[in-house]
Amino acid sequence: MTVQSTRTGLQLRSLVRANGQLELSLVSVPVPDPLPDEVLVRIEASPLNPSDQGLLFGAADMKTATYSGTADRPVVTATIPAERMGVVAARLDQSMPVGNEGAGVVVAAGRSDEAEALLGKRVAVIGGAMYAQYRSIKADQCLVLPEGTTAEEGASCFINPLTALGMVETMKREGHTALVHTAAASNLGQMLNKICLADEIGLVNIVRSQAQEDTLRALGAVHVCNSTSPAFMQELTAAILATGATLAFDAIGGGPLAGHILTCMEIVANRNANAYSRYGSTTHKQVYVYGRLNLKPIEVDGSFGMAWGVGGWLLWPFLQKIGAAAAQALRARIVAELKTTFASHYERSVSLAEALRPDAIADYGKRATGKKYLVTPQKGVAG
Amino acid sequence: MTVQSTRTGLQLRSLVRANGQLELSLVSVPVPDPLPDEVLVRIEASPLNPSDQGLLFGAADMKTATYSGTADRPVVTATIPAERMGVVAARLDQSMPVGNEGAGVVVAAGRSDEAEALLGKRVAVIGGAMYAQYRSIKADQCLVLPEGTTAEEGASCFINPLTALGMVETMKREGHTALVHTAAASNLGQMLNKICLADEIGLVNIVRSQAQEDTLRALGAVHVCNSTSPAFMQELTAAILATGATLAFDAIGGGPLAGHILTCMEIVANRNANAYSRYGSTTHKQVYVYGRLNLKPIEVDGSFGMAWGVGGWLLWPFLQKIGAAAAQALRARIVAELKTTFASHYERSVSLAEALRPDAIADYGKRATGKKYLVTPQKGVAG
Repeated sequence: MTVQSTRTGLQLRSLVRANGQLELSLVSVPVPDPLPDEVLVRIEASPLNPSDQGLLFGAADMKTATYSGTADRPVVTATIPAERMGVVAARLDQSMPVGNEGAGVVVAAGRSDEAEALLGKRVAVIGGAMYAQYRSIKADQCLVLPEGTTAEEGASCFINPLTALGMVETMKREGHTALVHTAAASNLGQMLNKICLADEIGLVNIVRSQAQEDTLRALGAVHVCNSTSPAFMQELTAAILATGATLAFDAIGGGPLAGHILTCMEIVANRNANAYSRYGSTTHKQVYVYGRLNLKPIEVDGSFGMAWGVGGWLLWPFLQKIGAAAAQALRARIVAELKTTFASHYERSVSLAEALRPDAIADYGKRATGKKYLVTPQKGVAG
Repeated sequence: MTVQSTRTGLQLRSLVRANGQLELSLVSVPVPDPLPDEVLVRIEASPLNPSDQGLLFGAADMKTATYSGTADRPVVTATIPAERMGVVAARLDQSMPVGNEGAGVVVAAGRSDEAEALLGKRVAVIGGAMYAQYRSIKADQCLVLPEGTTAEEGASCFINPLTALGMVETMKREGHTALVHTAAASNLGQMLNKICLADEIGLVNIVRSQAQEDTLRALGAVHVCNSTSPAFMQELTAAILATGATLAFDAIGGGPLAGHILTCMEIVANRNANAYSRYGSTTHKQVYVYGRLNLKPIEVDGSFGMAWGVGGWLLWPFLQKIGAAAAQALRARIVAELKTTFASHYERSVSLAEALRPDAIADYGKRATGKKYLVTPQKGVAG
């Protein structure tokens, strides 16, 4: 045991009060002694993913944010619009830790052999509450990082890599042979391009700027469609024709894009149809919305017959569905390709306190493609 | 053989020309001699279902319709908006017969025993081209109507009854226990109410007027929510709570209703949740859109987490999926309950020529709930 239970560490908390106020702050929490099957991880790096921001901001309008407290112990307060209080009804007045995944060093271990074997190792971990100096966690939830891996390299080992691999796995299991992906220049999208190039899977990337297109072309992406192009629909149809994609994963959600994708897929499906059907093609066309970068309504419009679906897709139920062995195979690939396929890039590293400053929230709150923040909880605090 | 092959009969046709013009007319076609396994049916009644209107009007804007020809041989011309020509690209310049289903008397039969056994019988038939005086069809596609059944009673034997039963069957097969239905006072909706009352299945009916609500209450419907009520969302939530419905069948499609249904389902799902989840409830909530009474975009908005789906639902792929034996069981129930559960009501009967007159098209073209037309091809023509 190298850490005493009387010691404390900082942890970032998000609290939604019944009066509609969000409060973000750092609290000092006791550092627990690990149970026999647990280890204590000193968290060195944890990404600020869009899914983390959902929990962090709790449906608040961050344009209403006010900042108080001290530089070391900042407090952010913001208002949740009345019509969005239903979203957070189940978490009222619970001070919630945040941060899905991260990486750090095991600094204490429980009595079990499995836990003790991890002592001193750098591990990747998932399970929430990672925006903290210390996180106690079951030994079997740790992924030991290969020698020479930095915490920054290992911080995003789970969510983006498993999501990218999960998309390809979903494609295979649901009988599709190629994919469309939106917001495709994201860290996740770059991983997906590398996977699809390696596995020879057709991938249609939808981006919103020339810079994003350049990023993907540099990785070797074959099909990149810029949604700001006047000929976007024709270009998307051509790319879908070339790949045969009948499945899309959409990170954006709001607006008309899902319907546009279905429409282009239907045009391709009808191109080879033998006879007119009043119900459209019999080819099932599916869009899975896995993120809501745009919180406006999803507008499903167009002419795509009756064989279509739009729905939510979430990593955890997917992993449960495929079972432990299949999920383990995905994890093994991630570790083997951590510095290549699954490399992440961060715009900026911030301490726990810096993550609550106005400039940082304004910047990462945009959830701009390719501008991910990394929380480094050991930065700027006494060790 | 009672009919000569030199004889002709009238058939309603829908033609979309490449120049964007729709043309509806009656043509005189030879009455064929039945092949050995076929019978010739003199069609007495055929409903004008929304799905027939999709084929009939071919995406044309019927406000642009012009009427010419004679009273016996009317011709209707209308313009298809340029942006909707993609929908009809696969049927350009093909003169298409219309009318999914109907009922009539077998007036000639092929040599096979199965065909000859039907001679003189009143049958229900499905397979298209029913807006015609005669329809030649395979004997095994005929459903013999019980003694004492009128053509009007048997005309809608397939689509609405099978769709209503298919909804209940889909509910069971996908693990739901109760249903939501929109445009619920329709012929189909009334059948669904009778089925659900008989089978003790929870059903939430969504209607748009007091008169529709009264219609359903008179049938014994327990849960009827009027979407024009100021408290609609609360009333829908209460009905979903009472029934446990996590599946909806939506005939309307356009607008925000699908999202509202998902939102109310999620409120109910979260009411019993033990812990807050940033991803919403884990209860899968599904809306199947089986009609597009509203052609505006489907707006999926609200707070319903990630476990949701909206998609098209079509009878024929569903019947294929469940297999011949299961489909036959549904048909047997329809015949047994044709005058009760599966009774249809028609606003007006029209001849083939009357179906193409301005007043008729303006009326049935509204697709108003409970105002269905019946085409009676023997009306007003020499026998």
